[in-house]
Amino acid sequence: MLEQLKKQVYEANMLLARSGLVIFTWGNVSGIDRERGLVVIKPSGIEYDKLSPLDLTVVDLDGNIVEGICRPSSDTRTHIEIYKAFPKVGGIAHTHSTYATSYAQAGRAIKPFGTTHADYFGGTIPCTRKMTLHEISGEYEKETGRLIVETFGDLNYEAICGVLVHSHGPFTWGVDALDSVEKSIVLEKVAHMAFNTELLFVAVGKGGGIPMQQDLLAKHNSRKHGPGAYYGQPKN
Amino acid sequence: MLEQLKKQVYEANMLLARSGLVIFTWGNVSGIDRERGLVVIKPSGIEYDKLSPLDLTVVDLDGNIVEGICRPSSDTRTHIEIYKAFPKVGGIAHTHSTYATSYAQAGRAIKPFGTTHADYFGGTIPCTRKMTLHEISGEYEKETGRLIVETFGDLNYEAICGVLVHSHGPFTWGVDALDSVEKSIVLEKVAHMAFNTELLFVAVGKGGGIPMQQDLLAKHNSRKHGPGAYYGQPKN
Amino acid sequence: MLEQLKKQVYEANMLLARSGLVIFTWGNVSGIDRERGLVVIKPSGIEYDKLSPLDLTVVDLDGNIVEGICRPSSDTRTHIEIYKAFPKVGGIAHTHSTYATSYAQAGRAIKPFGTTHADYFGGTIPCTRKMTLHEISGEYEKETGRLIVETFGDLNYEAICGVLVHSHGPFTWGVDALDSVEKSIVLEKVAHMAFNTELLFVAVGKGGGIPMQQDLLAKHNSRKHGPGAYYGQPKN
Amino acid sequence: MLEQLKKQVYEANMLLARSGLVIFTWGNVSGIDRERGLVVIKPSGIEYDKLSPLDLTVVDLDGNIVEGICRPSSDTRTHIEIYKAFPKVGGIAHTHSTYATSYAQAGRAIKPFGTTHADYFGGTIPCTRKMTLHEISGEYEKETGRLIVETFGDLNYEAICGVLVHSHGPFTWGVDALDSVEKSIVLEKVAHMAFNTELLFVAVGKGGGIPMQQDLLAKHNSRKHGPGAYYGQPKN
Repeated sequence: MLEQLKKQVYEANMLLARSGLVIFTWGNVSGIDRERGLVVIKPSGIEYDKLSPLDLTVVDLDGNIVEGICRPSSDTRTHIEIYKAFPKVGGIAHTHSTYATSYAQAGRAIKPFGTTHADYFGGTIPCTRKMTLHEISGEYEKETGRLIVETFGDLNYEAICGVLVHSHGPFTWGVDALDSVEKSIVLEKVAHMAFNTELLFVAVGKGGGIPMQQDLLAKHNSRKHGPGAYYGQPKN
Repeated sequence: MLEQLKKQVYEANMLLARSGLVIFTWGNVSGIDRERGLVVIKPSGIEYDKLSPLDLTVVDLDGNIVEGICRPSSDTRTHIEIYKAFPKVGGIAHTHSTYATSYAQAGRAIKPFGTTHADYFGGTIPCTRKMTLHEISGEYEKETGRLIVETFGDLNYEAICGVLVHSHGPFTWGVDALDSVEKSIVLEKVAHMAFNTELLFVAVGKGGGIPMQQDLLAKHNSRKHGPGAYYGQPKN
Repeated sequence: MLEQLKKQVYEANMLLARSGLVIFTWGNVSGIDRERGLVVIKPSGIEYDKLSPLDLTVVDLDGNIVEGICRPSSDTRTHIEIYKAFPKVGGIAHTHSTYATSYAQAGRAIKPFGTTHADYFGGTIPCTRKMTLHEISGEYEKETGRLIVETFGDLNYEAICGVLVHSHGPFTWGVDALDSVEKSIVLEKVAHMAFNTELLFVAVGKGGGIPMQQDLLAKHNSRKHGPGAYYGQPKN
Repeated sequence: MLEQLKKQVYEANMLLARSGLVIFTWGNVSGIDRERGLVVIKPSGIEYDKLSPLDLTVVDLDGNIVEGICRPSSDTRTHIEIYKAFPKVGGIAHTHSTYATSYAQAGRAIKPFGTTHADYFGGTIPCTRKMTLHEISGEYEKETGRLIVETFGDLNYEAICGVLVHSHGPFTWGVDALDSVEKSIVLEKVAHMAFNTELLFVAVGKGGGIPMQQDLLAKHNSRKHGPGAYYGQPKN
């Protein structure tokens, strides 16, 4: 069952592999069938060039395996928490991409410095707090998901479609699995440029940097995603 | 009509795609037919590997679509303002390439630090001021073009064939569309080396860096572009 | 003899070549047959695209050539000292990969900043002290091996499967030759991300950086390598 | 004539193109026939993928074109000065590779930080002084060569087989054209690692960095190039 979804989640995982953002078995992508409440996700520890759509695992929102012979990604519970809290999310990607992960390791949010950021993320990309010993030693992956949800608080998860987990790395989401991978690819570019921008500010004694104007951020985000969006071709 | 120009603008867009400077639908290249006052430009939000010369849009200098079924690049009005103010420009490229965009995000001009810069750009590559709220909320893309023209003031747009738009990214131009893409590729290299150079200066306590000698800059620029140029093979 | 081991060591060397971590004849990988006390290693100064399994050299644990017509890697004695001191090591890789070598050149250990590090290395990746003139002018490569062993002291070489030799570069090890190369590839990623992380800390005035929590490090290391490991698929 | 030399210089230029160190028409490689006193060099401004061995230009040591229909590289006079002053040099390569050029732009020599450097360069890679207005406005390319020779003074050009020209970029040399390109490729790696090393020193408040021990440098250089060299396979 869910053949169409499996095919898309498979393609999204392969796009991730081709993107250069992951090596070996790192990273994972999932997609959800909202009507049935079922998530299709990459199996744990399988290399991308050995993956086939048939290897994908189907789990329900309690984490039970519904279909598949492979153990699902160890991060499955994190994905599930995000799906439960963010109802319009259709796909989630997780990577350890170099620059986004570096920000996560420094425990730093990524401020918006330019329109590339604004075109995809409607504000600062937050970094979670550190996890408590209780969270780490308990249901760690589930707690990671809860921490992401906690971090968003009043933030709009549709406008800001990604997060950095402290000392770990990024999760991004979108309308479906492919869209979530596109967000991961853009996040890595945005993180690389933010990193460079901060060092250019350091070079002239302005450590930390100066974010872009809020007006410009809103303008770029809305011309692409707002009600009067005019970027791209009209839908159908 | 304009089949020859469409072919060249198409090839210039594909060169941009192959260059690694853009991903997804980012970036755009245009070319102008000065006699007819018509601009051929990449359509908005189309991925490069799905682009064909037939998809290119033809607009006049008021921005009206003269030919083509696709909506033109959202940056079309910026291109038009540049064409109107800089009469010898035959092609324009816009990217969000990593290092040039990082300078734009830091709101910093790129000083000439070496002969690679001097071979292509006859002086500091300027960065615009920030846009006003009025400019952002008005005809934003047209204002972006006007801001570029304003930034040049007394600068020679033929000698300095590119600009950084504050908090956004670079625009470059040349005698035709392919030339404008070559300038974008070189600008990214120049920006990367300027970035490294500035950090090497920081390492020895000289934040901001020391530009090259004006004499050397002029020498390299003129041996390639001046009246007695002797770089390359004689024309025809 | 040792055809199977030679085949694997050959494949491990070719994986190293494909990884982008080495150029020309740089780097080398070996594997050991513990029962016979014989080491198969890349010959010295041979380019990877000219290497065949037949070129591999077999040496005993005194460094005597037992089979092969090529002189073994100049680093052979270093490998042997590691094999003698670390009985569960089955393969060793040596590279001059850019970021790991940069840490070695700065004489700096790589602190654990995130879970990518923790997934493979169970603590700080140490950097040796500088070698003495006596060590350099004596049996240099053997002394390099002894220095690595000295550096580990009470450290667990199975949990921390790599080291930086001061002013030189990294050695990594694993259960076999292929595993040791995988560790080199991960070490380079970890070093790149640690480098970025430290610069992000510098940007906000926290030179040196703040390592991750020990609890999180232990959690990630044990979920992959501990007795109750649940990352990946069950063995057989 | 010089068919063999032309073939090798052609291959060296193509190796340079494949190395990723140059784009467009940047860079050039030459080789010399010492008996005849003739230099074979890349023509000026020709793209690598359009180059054939027949396009190479032959010049004598006064810079006169002896064979070939193309104008030789604009840097030909610089090559000639190096050949005249350094009698054992058989080939010369010039690039604007990113990290080596960044050091040249910062006007900084590359200190030896590790054995990768020591394996190829027997000491600090010097950077020339800035050129005087007189040198720039006179026979610029010839003066560039003279400046390189002046910079070496008592330095051993065989042990230190490259130089950075201030505000410009690197020149490297070797026993023949291919060897000179290999030196350019290694120089770029060495420059990248030195750059990283310096930033790691900055991160802990030691701007400028601490070079490696002279003893270790000498050891590594001599085990590869000294009279008792034991790196690689025996010659014959």
